[in-house]
Amino acid sequence: MTEVWLNGVLLAAEAARIAPDDRGLLLGDGLFETLRVSGGRPLRLDRHLARLRAGAEILALPVPLDDPGLAAAMDALLARRGLSEASLRLTLSRGPGPRGLLPPAEPTPTLLITAAPLPPPLPPARVVMAQGTRRNEHSPLSRIKSLSYLDGVLARQEAARRGADDALLLNTAGRIAEASAANLFLRLDDALVTPPVSEGPLPGVLRAAVLEAFPVVERPVTVEDLLLAEEAFLTSSLGVRPVIAIDGQPVGDGRPGVVATRLAAAL
Amino acid sequence: MTEVWLNGVLLAAEAARIAPDDRGLLLGDGLFETLRVSGGRPLRLDRHLARLRAGAEILALPVPLDDPGLAAAMDALLARRGLSEASLRLTLSRGPGPRGLLPPAEPTPTLLITAAPLPPPLPPARVVMAQGTRRNEHSPLSRIKSLSYLDGVLARQEAARRGADDALLLNTAGRIAEASAANLFLRLDDALVTPPVSEGPLPGVLRAAVLEAFPVVERPVTVEDLLLAEEAFLTSSLGVRPVIAIDGQPVGDGRPGVVATRLAAAL
Repeated sequence: MTEVWLNGVLLAAEAARIAPDDRGLLLGDGLFETLRVSGGRPLRLDRHLARLRAGAEILALPVPLDDPGLAAAMDALLARRGLSEASLRLTLSRGPGPRGLLPPAEPTPTLLITAAPLPPPLPPARVVMAQGTRRNEHSPLSRIKSLSYLDGVLARQEAARRGADDALLLNTAGRIAEASAANLFLRLDDALVTPPVSEGPLPGVLRAAVLEAFPVVERPVTVEDLLLAEEAFLTSSLGVRPVIAIDGQPVGDGRPGVVATRLAAAL
Repeated sequence: MTEVWLNGVLLAAEAARIAPDDRGLLLGDGLFETLRVSGGRPLRLDRHLARLRAGAEILALPVPLDDPGLAAAMDALLARRGLSEASLRLTLSRGPGPRGLLPPAEPTPTLLITAAPLPPPLPPARVVMAQGTRRNEHSPLSRIKSLSYLDGVLARQEAARRGADDALLLNTAGRIAEASAANLFLRLDDALVTPPVSEGPLPGVLRAAVLEAFPVVERPVTVEDLLLAEEAFLTSSLGVRPVIAIDGQPVGDGRPGVVATRLAAAL
């Protein structure tokens, strides 16, 4: 049996009920965080909770627990599931509401926590440039991890259709923003480069950790930069993933780069 | 007791359960349609179902019933609810899935139909220009009615904060796309004008009906056009709504326009 944590209660997933008028379902009105759990502890918990609260502020969405309460809920689920190496997802929706876009004045948010065994490390990625959709750097949604995630799904579907592992998305100005659910770093002239948040990538938690620990230049990244990169890799809360090909062209020598390898070991 | 129709079954809303791993909730992965019901019949049903199927095609999302099946489900709910003047919502999500963005190869979609008494006609709207977010005309999501609807929610919240009834959204090029959940028409030099779908508005069902029945010029609409408009109105499946002020400035003479009044009677 797989347990989940829903609104304060640990219960079997089969017994967990989301109401049909939940605005998370009806309007993508909410937020989520995906955390890596190692040795039974969620990694970079403070950063994840800070991002969740920043998103909640933008959505004017109350978070029903304080940080220690959220941590205790995650710990309770991990203990019940007996998981120590895991992927953990925290989903916060605005909860039930009447018809229409305007949220209720006093929402009763839905807070759901689920966990899964840590997936095995992914092989180096062959990616394509998404042609079907773009990140909207003009929306605050590009800067929060919202439940309205369908552009990412579309990009990931396109990658699969084209035989690739993931897709890189342009922003509306035609520059590189990120992958479907990961940030992009390039090594160019032996310097690490990543697009600033104003270009449309999600401010990823592992991205922030890399920026703190290593010298990285945040600057707009063009399609031409991709062609010149000596190395490319993706970061998400689940880890670092080298990119070895873009649209069928090898990146650098077509093998995982030295920085990605070093980072994966260090983070 | 309020009944809903969920995956083939009419049941009390309190008994209807959405699973916690439904991708509609977790990723905004799905579609919806809002229909006006008059005399017990959903208006412009064919157009709504055609748009639903066009969206499902873009998402590679199977629709579990054929059109007569969908119509029968709606009829069954309306009969059970005893509603003849109503607003009806059809929600189609991709259903449960494992973690990650890529949809399951064989999804079991969730189909939910809910109904509510028709809300009373809305008064003429005072709108503001949304400053917080923009429509992404570079995404196919601007052309389908997806569950990833949070930009519209943000715009509507901003309107409420600023004491307005609704907000108009720019596209990423800085031209007018639509309102938070309605299309915009302007009367300029006695011609009706509305932005083409390439500018980012949803291809609204009532918008299409207006385009068929009246001479309308589809062309990009600028902020300057708003200032010159002799009349402005919004269309959604629930009806036609005059716009009498934009950012505190009266539109035309500040009263509902003649075309909006004529359309509301004709459609």
